[in-house]
Amino acid sequence: MQRPVRLSVDCMGGDHGPSITLPACRTFLDKHPDAELLLVGKPDALTAAASWSRCRIVAASEVVEMDDPIDIALRKKRDSSMRVAIQQVKAGDTPPAADACVSAGNTGALMAVARYLLKTLDGIDRPAIASVMPNTRDGFTTMLDLGANVDCTAEHLLQFAVMGSALVSAVDGKETPTVGLLNIGEEAIKGSEVIKRAGELLRAAGESGLINFRGNVEGNDIFKGTTDLVVCDGFVGNVALKTAEGLATMLSTFIKQEFTRTPYAKLAALVALPVLKHFKDRVDHRRYNGAALLGLRGLVFKSHGSADALAFETALTRAYDAARNGLLERVHERINFALQASLNTNPANANRAAEAPAPRQAA
Amino acid sequence: MQRPVRLSVDCMGGDHGPSITLPACRTFLDKHPDAELLLVGKPDALTAAASWSRCRIVAASEVVEMDDPIDIALRKKRDSSMRVAIQQVKAGDTPPAADACVSAGNTGALMAVARYLLKTLDGIDRPAIASVMPNTRDGFTTMLDLGANVDCTAEHLLQFAVMGSALVSAVDGKETPTVGLLNIGEEAIKGSEVIKRAGELLRAAGESGLINFRGNVEGNDIFKGTTDLVVCDGFVGNVALKTAEGLATMLSTFIKQEFTRTPYAKLAALVALPVLKHFKDRVDHRRYNGAALLGLRGLVFKSHGSADALAFETALTRAYDAARNGLLERVHERINFALQASLNTNPANANRAAEAPAPRQAA
Repeated sequence: MQRPVRLSVDCMGGDHGPSITLPACRTFLDKHPDAELLLVGKPDALTAAASWSRCRIVAASEVVEMDDPIDIALRKKRDSSMRVAIQQVKAGDTPPAADACVSAGNTGALMAVARYLLKTLDGIDRPAIASVMPNTRDGFTTMLDLGANVDCTAEHLLQFAVMGSALVSAVDGKETPTVGLLNIGEEAIKGSEVIKRAGELLRAAGESGLINFRGNVEGNDIFKGTTDLVVCDGFVGNVALKTAEGLATMLSTFIKQEFTRTPYAKLAALVALPVLKHFKDRVDHRRYNGAALLGLRGLVFKSHGSADALAFETALTRAYDAARNGLLERVHERINFALQASLNTNPANANRAAEAPAPRQAA
Repeated sequence: MQRPVRLSVDCMGGDHGPSITLPACRTFLDKHPDAELLLVGKPDALTAAASWSRCRIVAASEVVEMDDPIDIALRKKRDSSMRVAIQQVKAGDTPPAADACVSAGNTGALMAVARYLLKTLDGIDRPAIASVMPNTRDGFTTMLDLGANVDCTAEHLLQFAVMGSALVSAVDGKETPTVGLLNIGEEAIKGSEVIKRAGELLRAAGESGLINFRGNVEGNDIFKGTTDLVVCDGFVGNVALKTAEGLATMLSTFIKQEFTRTPYAKLAALVALPVLKHFKDRVDHRRYNGAALLGLRGLVFKSHGSADALAFETALTRAYDAARNGLLERVHERINFALQASLNTNPANANRAAEAPAPRQAA
């Protein structure tokens, strides 16, 4: 049997805290007999889990609230469940206590604390946030960055492509995932100056075998599944993500309104219920909850703040899959390949053929 | 009775040409007894309309194909239906022959030819493309730019806000439409450097009464209808638009698949048909076809290339409404107000208190 995968869970984070995170952890443990959990939070709030096997409660006296400014999370609440949970994946003289951390806490705070505690990998200027969206092929399209970096250079976009490819290979099991650069046309001459330059870098990276670059993609290609990975800056990625969420919400509202508008519509709703249910399950956003914070010296996953137990369990599973399949090493290998091939044109990285971090799972 | 509104129609443009544009023109004329049309194209292809009243065929010997490069449209095909149609709205020593032009031709070519022939208004650096998306309030959210300008300054975004406000006031009859700046968070400190600076300019413009600025909005606010107008650069706008199109297509595919998956599902589809039909009508993209090219010395509207007769008729109606309600004068007045109040901080515009163009409807 494989060595266990251990996750540290910020049980206090998100809109609902332990009332959601604990049931999710329970189900997750039942489904993953080789998983172990470090449940981080106020012990009083976690008593329900005190007797669980393959679990240990790690005390943290404070909680980062969803509307806490980054500064509070970073400098004031030094014993927050978020911070203590992240600390568990930090490698020091000894391997880290956990393989990956999961939190539903606020994104800005999580990224800031994770970056402060874990530091970025050599060869990475900025960590990025990657998540998945469903596509017509009944698979998932991975997309990054989704909001961590608003002003990006072409080099940053190349780094995103490299890290995202590592993520897809680890979590979705595709060794050479296809990569698209989000643009406003397929032709290489399209787009802003940064995007055109990024296109050149990605093409070169594709030719060197670092990534499997397929050229420009457009917004609709995300849902077509034209490429496994879509790369963009955090501003564009965040707008695309929230636009999609907004449209989905509107259409869902309209469908509900239409199926309750008249007595006939209500009857039709009863008849159509199993069909609508199947449709709903297929696009259920809880099935793809769990964004990866990539580029750090440790694995951190972010659940949606409003996640319910099923959604939070999905985030746990994604973190588990990433850790089980050596995401950290995969990112590191690809970045080192890029550095050695001098593909990353950032001169500051020229001599940074990095030492491997010491992840727990490499022991 | 009001003086007639006259539209020039590029009958050859789009994927389908006269087989779509002529039936759309016929229906449009029937619904608008005070409208007149200049039908531009190859006379042989327009014989069906030869005897229509309130119509005149204007001969053009060439056609800009959907995949023609901009250069071909601009420099080679000087007698194209697109170019001749645009020429009709150009004011010279005499008022223009038409109040607005409508084409389903390719966007890049249309913008380039329109800009070349008509020139930009004083105070406007770059024309922008504005269109509408449906929102949960059963209204429409107008958005610009949707792809004409990929690298924008804060000043450009201010100009978009001013022109977009004029558009909403003319077409949707809201005299002081609310304006949102598309960003990745509501707080003023969010976003890229350009967006933060644009936020300052838009706030100042709001305080001066030039626009009704409501602050930052996010992608999901487009479909909530949080503001009447959403302003963004052309890269972000195009990605948001195509992301929404892609998601809508995917969900529509999924619904069709679910309602044909099993014999029961097919039965349920029959029962639910009237409800699904009503839902479909509500989000029918043909109901909001017709993008405005704003900032030019003449009104030009762009229909989707793949528009059917109903969609093309919608574009004709939008152009008609804009011309009837003096969109050109409204844009001009607002831009002049901005110039006089020195709100547009582009120094090149400092002494450009512009002369009014001579639109046909002002005669």
